[in-house]
Amino acid sequence: MSTLRVWAPEAATVEIEAGGQRHALVPLAGDWWEAELPDLAAGEDYAYVLDGGEPLPDPRSMHQPHGVHGPSRVVDPGSFDWHDADWHGVPLAGGVIYELHVGTFTPEGTLDAAIGKLDHLATLGVDFLELLPVTAFPGQHGWGYDGVALYAVHEAYGGPAALARFVDAAHVRGLGVILDVVYNHLGPSGNYLERYGPYFTQRHQTPWGPAVNYDDVGSAEVRRFVVENARMWLRDYHVDGLRLDAVHAIIDTSAVPILEQLAADVEWLGAHLRRTMFLIAESDLNDPRMVRSREAGGHGMDAVWSDDFHHALHAVLTGERSGYYADFGELDHLATAFAEGYVYAGQHSAYRGRIHGRPPVLVPTYRFLGYLQDHDQVGNRARGERSAALMSQGRLRVGAALVLLAPFTPMLWMGEEWGASTPWQYFTDHDDPALADSVRRGRRAEFAAFGWKPSEVPDPQDPATFTRSKLNWAEVTETSHAELLEWHRKLLALRRAEPAFTDPQFQHVSVSYDEDAGWLVLGRGSTMLVVANVSRERQLVPIDGTPIDVLAASAHGFAFAAGAVEIDGESVCIVRLSQFG
Amino acid sequence: MSTLRVWAPEAATVEIEAGGQRHALVPLAGDWWEAELPDLAAGEDYAYVLDGGEPLPDPRSMHQPHGVHGPSRVVDPGSFDWHDADWHGVPLAGGVIYELHVGTFTPEGTLDAAIGKLDHLATLGVDFLELLPVTAFPGQHGWGYDGVALYAVHEAYGGPAALARFVDAAHVRGLGVILDVVYNHLGPSGNYLERYGPYFTQRHQTPWGPAVNYDDVGSAEVRRFVVENARMWLRDYHVDGLRLDAVHAIIDTSAVPILEQLAADVEWLGAHLRRTMFLIAESDLNDPRMVRSREAGGHGMDAVWSDDFHHALHAVLTGERSGYYADFGELDHLATAFAEGYVYAGQHSAYRGRIHGRPPVLVPTYRFLGYLQDHDQVGNRARGERSAALMSQGRLRVGAALVLLAPFTPMLWMGEEWGASTPWQYFTDHDDPALADSVRRGRRAEFAAFGWKPSEVPDPQDPATFTRSKLNWAEVTETSHAELLEWHRKLLALRRAEPAFTDPQFQHVSVSYDEDAGWLVLGRGSTMLVVANVSRERQLVPIDGTPIDVLAASAHGFAFAAGAVEIDGESVCIVRLSQFG
Repeated sequence: MSTLRVWAPEAATVEIEAGGQRHALVPLAGDWWEAELPDLAAGEDYAYVLDGGEPLPDPRSMHQPHGVHGPSRVVDPGSFDWHDADWHGVPLAGGVIYELHVGTFTPEGTLDAAIGKLDHLATLGVDFLELLPVTAFPGQHGWGYDGVALYAVHEAYGGPAALARFVDAAHVRGLGVILDVVYNHLGPSGNYLERYGPYFTQRHQTPWGPAVNYDDVGSAEVRRFVVENARMWLRDYHVDGLRLDAVHAIIDTSAVPILEQLAADVEWLGAHLRRTMFLIAESDLNDPRMVRSREAGGHGMDAVWSDDFHHALHAVLTGERSGYYADFGELDHLATAFAEGYVYAGQHSAYRGRIHGRPPVLVPTYRFLGYLQDHDQVGNRARGERSAALMSQGRLRVGAALVLLAPFTPMLWMGEEWGASTPWQYFTDHDDPALADSVRRGRRAEFAAFGWKPSEVPDPQDPATFTRSKLNWAEVTETSHAELLEWHRKLLALRRAEPAFTDPQFQHVSVSYDEDAGWLVLGRGSTMLVVANVSRERQLVPIDGTPIDVLAASAHGFAFAAGAVEIDGESVCIVRLSQFG
Repeated sequence: MSTLRVWAPEAATVEIEAGGQRHALVPLAGDWWEAELPDLAAGEDYAYVLDGGEPLPDPRSMHQPHGVHGPSRVVDPGSFDWHDADWHGVPLAGGVIYELHVGTFTPEGTLDAAIGKLDHLATLGVDFLELLPVTAFPGQHGWGYDGVALYAVHEAYGGPAALARFVDAAHVRGLGVILDVVYNHLGPSGNYLERYGPYFTQRHQTPWGPAVNYDDVGSAEVRRFVVENARMWLRDYHVDGLRLDAVHAIIDTSAVPILEQLAADVEWLGAHLRRTMFLIAESDLNDPRMVRSREAGGHGMDAVWSDDFHHALHAVLTGERSGYYADFGELDHLATAFAEGYVYAGQHSAYRGRIHGRPPVLVPTYRFLGYLQDHDQVGNRARGERSAALMSQGRLRVGAALVLLAPFTPMLWMGEEWGASTPWQYFTDHDDPALADSVRRGRRAEFAAFGWKPSEVPDPQDPATFTRSKLNWAEVTETSHAELLEWHRKLLALRRAEPAFTDPQFQHVSVSYDEDAGWLVLGRGSTMLVVANVSRERQLVPIDGTPIDVLAASAHGFAFAAGAVEIDGESVCIVRLSQFG
């Protein structure tokens, strides 16, 4: 027997359409409506009808087998088959994240196909797989940030049961799963939420239109919709953590901000399910409140993406200075990120034209995610070039070492570990021709500002743009790719073997550099040094201490003595110092 | 090859005695001494000689096979055989602790014998086993708080390898292990630490003599000694958490108190080992700083024992009012504990003659341990009576429900689950006759103040006192014990099944009571009520809501209607309310 409930505060009547018939729902307290349908079993389709109008998908539909515009299908999460009974989660601290997009991770582009790559990831040495959004969006393929059925798993990825199979297979291999969820906007097409109630408010605006209503009339139920969505992934799909997309676009003036409410709810659920769970925010606010504990007045996020570190590293390694890279480009920026977390922590940002950020005092290092690339930094380029296409093999290895041995929680973007040669471009599959055209033109206009001709910018709607963005796994075994993969494995093993590399305290980080000479030395604890030479010349890098061992080196031509390491241009080596000075 | 190092800041020469020979150690920086002994293998004995004196055990000896006064034995922790490779720890939040004393838990009194009872504990439904101290102390048996070789596992319990086997066996069954460690004093006999350096200071006094030196000259190395001790249990023995004994007897005026340093170090180790680990403090300070996070200015303990809740519950159920129970005895005290954590949070305490405590604002409920009894509350009675000997079977069931469905992290004391009839008394096995006599006389004098005759107080040194304190597992299957065991299992299952019972927020706790009538209703979330009647009479208890289900009841004679539950005297029932009021 199925009991269906839906919140519809503005409707005079609510019906359910199932099996060719309509049944009236009865009103409950709080503008909820309920129906008992003894014959509606898992696997059957249904839709709601408000005030006698057209059938609409359930706002909390777990399955949209006919797409986001079609009827919803009943799912019984109890029917998922689990093999992870002993899984209590894994702490985020000390872990390494691998970000992937299901549609382009494998040729098939499904969750089941992704299971076939889990052994590769376990061997690589990462701890968590972070999936770009898997909620249902219109069309077959896309990045996933245009999701509209927030409780449903995208059909082209395999639907709800496939997500459960993926998480289960990951857990069996000791890998945790993080899901990217978008609570700041809905996609421009297929958004039926607003038909049901005040899910959006005109009080605040986002880059994608009216804001989700977290603090206006009726927001209590909207907040509940979001909180229970988070619960569903963590409880029904055994997901370990959520990555909250662009929380700077969530405007909430409530005394208990929705982020804090989510954090409290995750604490509640973790205590019940006896599992370690966490929330990671994507925020460009450089505000330490994001990751401060709730008792210390913060939002209680477990970690936050750190674009400052990315930008500092990217600008140094590529020499790019356009757009937001204008604020970066010196080794000094990179050194500041290593030593303090944010680069902009109260200083004036030329790119933003305002003061930006605040020092993250007392925040442990692992609460910042550090990366050389991510889906945005690659895909938001006109042609979607990865780091491997933008710098020398030597610099790529330096970048890998500075990410994987950084104080932060490292994150790799799928294919980064072998320097995938495929681009990752902006692709869409909008079914609304006007929207498709607008997206195409918007993309071209955006990059025209940077000097790109329209013909040089791939057409997001062209299926080839999507296909071109799929990883080519055949290249993994080619020598240069295999060597880079081995370099990543080596660094990840080193990170795990030496506690200094997961030390959570910024106080134990030291940095020295020479801007003109082009070298930087990152010290972790009292005995570990990452000596990076980003210049083209071989040079003598002064260090404070006596090396007794080289733990890894990206080039063979190094030498060391008390007080100095000599290394090749565009190379990095990791040395252990004598603990007795 | 063995490299041995020891800190001996006051010695002019340090030698090692092994294999009948003495070898000189060479001084290192920081008053450390070192020797390389290629022939000293695991399993071989050695001792240090300072300034040509008598052989002394190693302060960091992991094994004292001949007792605490004898030579130390080399242990290779790498030789422990582990089967818990997938173990990443279990969060404390939502868990249940079972406290046990190895020597009296089984007839054999060993860690290996305790392994034989792990299935009983897993079936019971607890999550963590907390061992009373297992560090080496003089004599064969004792509570363990007289430990002197803080890095060694007591030989009578099976020594180091036995502890590793125990933890491994627990992990394989999904059970975590917490170790009780004593960092506030050393036992009165066999303490050789002071020969090596300034491990103690006259600057502060404890009930057991000079305080451990955490803030005086030379304290850096003493603190390191303690921090590395904690690390050893967590790293080498895979222990999940430490219970820090009587931290109110640790006086540390440093800017970074040792507790905070320990918490930071555990965070560091957890990030390296990728395991959930925690620290629980025993503190009678009622100071929320203990469990506040470090970033919020606290010591960062994960939880603290809550004697206030114990005293409130014990006094209500037994009617006892002597000693510290003078501050308790009303349902109002119990209600305050449920609703706010501490009973004394800034009020005047008649027993202490001063203002006591501070409100634990924003502290999650699970950071308090709640118990009806513990080793101290039982063993520190003149005759070591357990709760089962002090109250009716009905009240015992009420007590179990109020502990296991409380907002706190529940803790059971070994045998409590079946109402063990054996006492747990104060027993010692001091090898120093003068000390033995002093302990015996001290014990009698202590209880003379409460009207006990000397002959009524068991002699701690009498081996029969120890033997009498061992659990009698034969009684588990006797009907009345088996029924009580079933009651505990049922409550533990209920706690796990209903998220309201592990809800971490005090705001979601409600309490009503009638002091004269003798009933108390504990509300968890909006739909769970624990209705307790501690009077002897059957009565009608008013409640706020409409019961729709009885989840458990300790007596059959209950009835319910909207707004009221009628239950027998000295009984408890747990009802679910309609969520629609």
